[in-house]
Amino acid sequence: MSGRSPGSIPGAAALVSERWARMAWSRVAEPETVLVRDWVEAHGAVESMDRLLSGSLAPDGRFDQRIAALDLDQARRALDRLHVRVVIPGDDEWPLGLDQLESPPLCLYARGTCDLAVADGSVAVVGSRAATAYGLRVAADLGQGLVQRGVTVVSGAAFGIDAAAHRGALAGGGPTIAVLARGLDRAYPQAHEGLLREIADNGAVVSELPPGWAPYRQRFIARNRLIAAMSVGTVVVEAGLRSGSLNTARTARILVRHVAAVPGPVTSVQSAGCHKLLRETDALLVTDAAEVLDLMGRLSLDAVGPARAPVTPESDLDSLARTVWSAVPVRTPADLAKLQRLTALDTTTLLGVLGRLTMLGLVVRVGERWRKVPAPRR
Amino acid sequence: MSGRSPGSIPGAAALVSERWARMAWSRVAEPETVLVRDWVEAHGAVESMDRLLSGSLAPDGRFDQRIAALDLDQARRALDRLHVRVVIPGDDEWPLGLDQLESPPLCLYARGTCDLAVADGSVAVVGSRAATAYGLRVAADLGQGLVQRGVTVVSGAAFGIDAAAHRGALAGGGPTIAVLARGLDRAYPQAHEGLLREIADNGAVVSELPPGWAPYRQRFIARNRLIAAMSVGTVVVEAGLRSGSLNTARTARILVRHVAAVPGPVTSVQSAGCHKLLRETDALLVTDAAEVLDLMGRLSLDAVGPARAPVTPESDLDSLARTVWSAVPVRTPADLAKLQRLTALDTTTLLGVLGRLTMLGLVVRVGERWRKVPAPRR
Repeated sequence: MSGRSPGSIPGAAALVSERWARMAWSRVAEPETVLVRDWVEAHGAVESMDRLLSGSLAPDGRFDQRIAALDLDQARRALDRLHVRVVIPGDDEWPLGLDQLESPPLCLYARGTCDLAVADGSVAVVGSRAATAYGLRVAADLGQGLVQRGVTVVSGAAFGIDAAAHRGALAGGGPTIAVLARGLDRAYPQAHEGLLREIADNGAVVSELPPGWAPYRQRFIARNRLIAAMSVGTVVVEAGLRSGSLNTARTARILVRHVAAVPGPVTSVQSAGCHKLLRETDALLVTDAAEVLDLMGRLSLDAVGPARAPVTPESDLDSLARTVWSAVPVRTPADLAKLQRLTALDTTTLLGVLGRLTMLGLVVRVGERWRKVPAPRR
Repeated sequence: MSGRSPGSIPGAAALVSERWARMAWSRVAEPETVLVRDWVEAHGAVESMDRLLSGSLAPDGRFDQRIAALDLDQARRALDRLHVRVVIPGDDEWPLGLDQLESPPLCLYARGTCDLAVADGSVAVVGSRAATAYGLRVAADLGQGLVQRGVTVVSGAAFGIDAAAHRGALAGGGPTIAVLARGLDRAYPQAHEGLLREIADNGAVVSELPPGWAPYRQRFIARNRLIAAMSVGTVVVEAGLRSGSLNTARTARILVRHVAAVPGPVTSVQSAGCHKLLRETDALLVTDAAEVLDLMGRLSLDAVGPARAPVTPESDLDSLARTVWSAVPVRTPADLAKLQRLTALDTTTLLGVLGRLTMLGLVVRVGERWRKVPAPRR
């Protein structure tokens, strides 16, 4: 099949911008399409979209149907109407953890009052839809306890544990981020329309799917990877043995994030997945928000009190870690050579400390370079 | 102070026997009296008791009061009346795990239908007195599930978890062993008189304290070490943060026994001690009897079914372990040199496999020698 002349696409002039090119890509390819990731990586989003439209990139025509449906003028109107913004890698508010994914999202559609950078240093609280009263209570307590300690709560806005975690975070004053497995034109689940509005007012609702895209099984799995990657760690509150939240935990483990699980009665099938995680993986047992923070490395945040005290990593680190942390730039990531010049440390030591700082959610690695994670903003 | 002439002690003629000498020692010294352990180890129970009575062993007279009260004729009558037998190291039914204690009991007073050797390969199920309905149910299920898989259940007959574990074991057909922190002249706690009678009928009730001795704090702690040492592992079902069962778990860990804990709701203070164990030590999380057996190493016992199938370690071991296990004698322990001749293995390998077999509860170490643990008898 031949391509479609850019001239025939409404609003195609915008495709000279990285943002619009990525948006166009997100309307053509499913999340985690490795081929598209490779093209965008090799040629950039603008150039590869140009090649796609000229028919030279995918001569087998596999994207033709979606290309034919592209209408960027309409897309722009929809975003305006929905109060949705498009965030791309390199933006200040791009959640840096996403860069560690094998297939990062092409862009994020976002609605809400919070800069998505509040995801840096966040904790994901997830679990099953069919939660028990016990699980709901623990998830809400965790959500509230985490935000009261300055930590953003990320979840999937699903029934059960997800919703309870968001509600707890809202009760604690937020922020909280809901990552959806459908486009932001509709609430999903529908019954959570009010909850999602509240989340947007006190955080953000995001998706890598364009407005209008519906949730399918594969898109849930893809969504779970965003939750795992955005946060420094995932806490599973309740999970049956086949709960999707175990899949989020698995991704978190692969991404070298912290994984924790809340135990429950051994007589409850809704805790069986958590107990399995605790028995068969290196997931750690947590019983409250303080223990989550303890695990995730910010040992002394709790002692900093009162709630909402600013994060002051300087006070939480040993002198070696503080030296390195001070050397890492806030905005433009620095490479190893530069950090070595600034710290006078050998490569092994430096990489070790950078790893620790990354796990602490204080520093983020962007390719072969490092930069500070911004302190939570409110 | 001077000693007391043996001639003035009723029944003193019996003191030429190891059993009566140890009984006499148990009526003179508190459990875990290091000095007494050293004397008995150095001179034997008979000779050291003789020296004690002649006044040459403890010239400071610290035992004089109890020596003055010794009446072995009366002791014999009490044992007969109570249907209590005295078991000492070297007896066929002596629980071999006790030899690994720093201060083994001088003797065990025992009542019941079961040979105490059923303690070899047993599992201790312990927990708090102030248990919840949840904890009681789990303890009973564990007790029943373990005996149905051929494993003796050891506990302390206290209110709460201990009693539930015994009751579960009885429901499963036993055997179960209750280790008391007082002499066997009275039920302790009094309310468990019926339960203790049932335990004696389907197992054994034991104590290192002579009839008449009352329970004191230190004696509870001493009792806990017997529970930990008799069994190949300890499972804590519910425990507050200051529960004595955590002390049993600590002793089990020191003795290189398995330690496991059952999780519960994080909202329950009665599970807080279990969660602490799971977070802060290498205790493993278990949710049922099958997982306990899995942990304690008898992986395939479960598959051997039906319940009460004879233990056949041969089928559960790799060929190396089977070679060593076959070489270990049933009765008279063999030393390393002998086992090397029989197996043609180097010292390191041999010690490693012996360690594994010991942890599996199949072999027991007696000083520098090893012998098989008898298969459960019923």
